[in-house]
Amino acid sequence: MKTSSELSLTLAFDLEGFFNERQALIDGELDRLLPGESVEPVSVHKAIRWSVFAGGKRFRPILMLTTGEAFGASPGVLLATACALEMIHTYSLIHDDLPSMDDDELRRGRPTCHIRFDEATAILAGDALQTLAFQTIAEESLLSAEKRVLLVSELGHAAGTPGGMVAGQARDLEAESRAVTSRELEGIHRLKTAALIIAAARCGAIIAEATDPELEAVGRYAAQLGLLFQITDDLLDITATVETLGKTPGKDARAQKATYPSLYGIETARQRADLVHQEACAVLKQIDRPTKRLRAIADFILRRKA
Amino acid sequence: MKTSSELSLTLAFDLEGFFNERQALIDGELDRLLPGESVEPVSVHKAIRWSVFAGGKRFRPILMLTTGEAFGASPGVLLATACALEMIHTYSLIHDDLPSMDDDELRRGRPTCHIRFDEATAILAGDALQTLAFQTIAEESLLSAEKRVLLVSELGHAAGTPGGMVAGQARDLEAESRAVTSRELEGIHRLKTAALIIAAARCGAIIAEATDPELEAVGRYAAQLGLLFQITDDLLDITATVETLGKTPGKDARAQKATYPSLYGIETARQRADLVHQEACAVLKQIDRPTKRLRAIADFILRRKA
Repeated sequence: MKTSSELSLTLAFDLEGFFNERQALIDGELDRLLPGESVEPVSVHKAIRWSVFAGGKRFRPILMLTTGEAFGASPGVLLATACALEMIHTYSLIHDDLPSMDDDELRRGRPTCHIRFDEATAILAGDALQTLAFQTIAEESLLSAEKRVLLVSELGHAAGTPGGMVAGQARDLEAESRAVTSRELEGIHRLKTAALIIAAARCGAIIAEATDPELEAVGRYAAQLGLLFQITDDLLDITATVETLGKTPGKDARAQKATYPSLYGIETARQRADLVHQEACAVLKQIDRPTKRLRAIADFILRRKA
Repeated sequence: MKTSSELSLTLAFDLEGFFNERQALIDGELDRLLPGESVEPVSVHKAIRWSVFAGGKRFRPILMLTTGEAFGASPGVLLATACALEMIHTYSLIHDDLPSMDDDELRRGRPTCHIRFDEATAILAGDALQTLAFQTIAEESLLSAEKRVLLVSELGHAAGTPGGMVAGQARDLEAESRAVTSRELEGIHRLKTAALIIAAARCGAIIAEATDPELEAVGRYAAQLGLLFQITDDLLDITATVETLGKTPGKDARAQKATYPSLYGIETARQRADLVHQEACAVLKQIDRPTKRLRAIADFILRRKA
C-alpha cells in the first residue's frame, strides 16, 4: 500500500497536466472576454491585460472548474463564470497593490499595474474588471437566468462587504502594526482570501446543480483550502526567494504584519497547515462524488513552492 | 395659450413635490440596502454612507422611476434597481475624487470621501458599492430572473469599458491639458455621464416591459438629457458660487479642462443647451405614453441652479 505522501506525489503529477490544460482553456476564454489592447480607452485595456495575463496560477477558476466537473457539469458551461472569478481576483490584486493600500511595486516578478502604468489607470482597470465580471455572468447564455442571478449574488457576497473580500482587506489594513489575536487573523483571512475561494467551489457546484448538503460540504472543503492557501502564502513569504516567489519576500515581517509564522513560529505554522489539509480531505470523504482532483488540489497547495 | 416658458414653470412646480417624494423613497431604500455604520468593517461602511447620504439629487434613480412609471410599472418593482444605479454613480464619484484622478477635496459642500476618511478606505468604499449594486439587482425577488440578468448587463455596459462610465473617465483624464475637439468632448461626456443616464431610463423601461422601439426612443431621450446635464454642469462651474454649487467653482478652467463654455463661449453653450433640450422633448413626442414628467425633468435640468 502506498503511503499518504507517495499517493500525493502521484496525484500531484496527474494534476499538473490537468492544471495546464485548464489554465490554457481559461486563458483563451479570458482573452476572448477582455477588450483588446487597441480598443479605446487603450491605457485601461492595456493595464487590464497586463494584470490578468501576468502569469497567475488561475487557482480560483481551476478550483471552480474542478468542483463543477466533479458534480457533473462540462467545462463549457463553467468557463465564463470561472473567468469572472479571475476578473474579481485580479481587480482586487490591482487595488490592493496601490500606494495607499499595500504599496507593492512587484507582483509575479513584474511591476504592479500602477507602477507599469499610473495610479489612475490602475484604479480604473480594477473598476472595469469588477464590472466585466458581473456582466460576463449576466450575459452567459449557456446558463439559465435563474442560475446567473444565483451566481452574481454568490460572487457579490464573496467580493464585497460585510462578508467578503473587501471587508477582509479593510480589516487587514486596520490591523496593521497592532497586535492581533490568532482568532482575528483567521477572521481576516476568511474574508480576504477564503471568501472568494469558497465562492469558486460553490459556483461550480451551483452550475452543476449540486444539492444543498453538497453545496454546504463543498463550502466547508473550500474554507479549509482558503485557510491552507493563506498559511502556505505566509510561510512562503518567509522561506522563499524573490526568484521563486516573483514578489519581494519578507515584506510581511518588515511591515510588522500579523502572519501565521509571526504568531505561531514557522514549525507550528507548518503543523497547522498539515492539520487544515487533513480537515479539507476529511470533508471530501463525505461527498459521494469523484473528488480525486479536489483532493489533489489540496495536496498541491500544501506543497506549493510559489 | 400658455407660452413654453410658463408651461415649464408649472411643470417644474409639480415636479418638485414628485422629486421630494421619490427622493424620500429612494433614500429609505438605500438606507435599508446599505450595511449599517456599526457593522464591521466600520470604516468602509461609514465611508459608504458618508458619500451616499451627502445630499445627492438622486437624478439617475428618479429618472429611472419616472421612466418606469411612464411605461406602467409601480415604484415598488423599480426601487431596488434605482438604488443600484445610485450606488454605481456614488462609487464613481468617490473614485473620481481621488488624488490620482480629479483630486477633489470638496463635494456637495462637504469633504470628499478620501479627505474625510483616507484614500484606502475611499477606494474600498467605492469597490464595495459597485459590488453591492450588482448584488442588489441579482437578489431583487420582485423581478423575474430574466429581467434581473438584463438589468445587470445593461448596467454593466453603462458602467464599464469600452462603452461606459469608466471608459469616459479614462478618456477625460487622457484629454486633460491638451486641445480636444468638440466632437471628442461630446464623445467623452457620452461615456462619462450620459451612459449611466441612458441606462437609468432604459432600466425603468425594461422593468415596465416597454417594446424595443420604445426602449430605443427612451434611450435617445436620455442621451440628450445626459448631454444637457453635462452642458449645464459646465456652465454652472463658471457661473455659480461655491454656496449654491457645494463644490469649488471655476475648477475646470484652472485645470484647463475642455468644457462647453471653454470651447464655444458661455452664450453659445447656453444656446446649445436650449437646442439639446428641444431635441429631448421632440423624442418624447414620439412616445405614446404619459411622458409629462419626463418632459418636466428635461425642463428642470435646463434651468437647474446647482
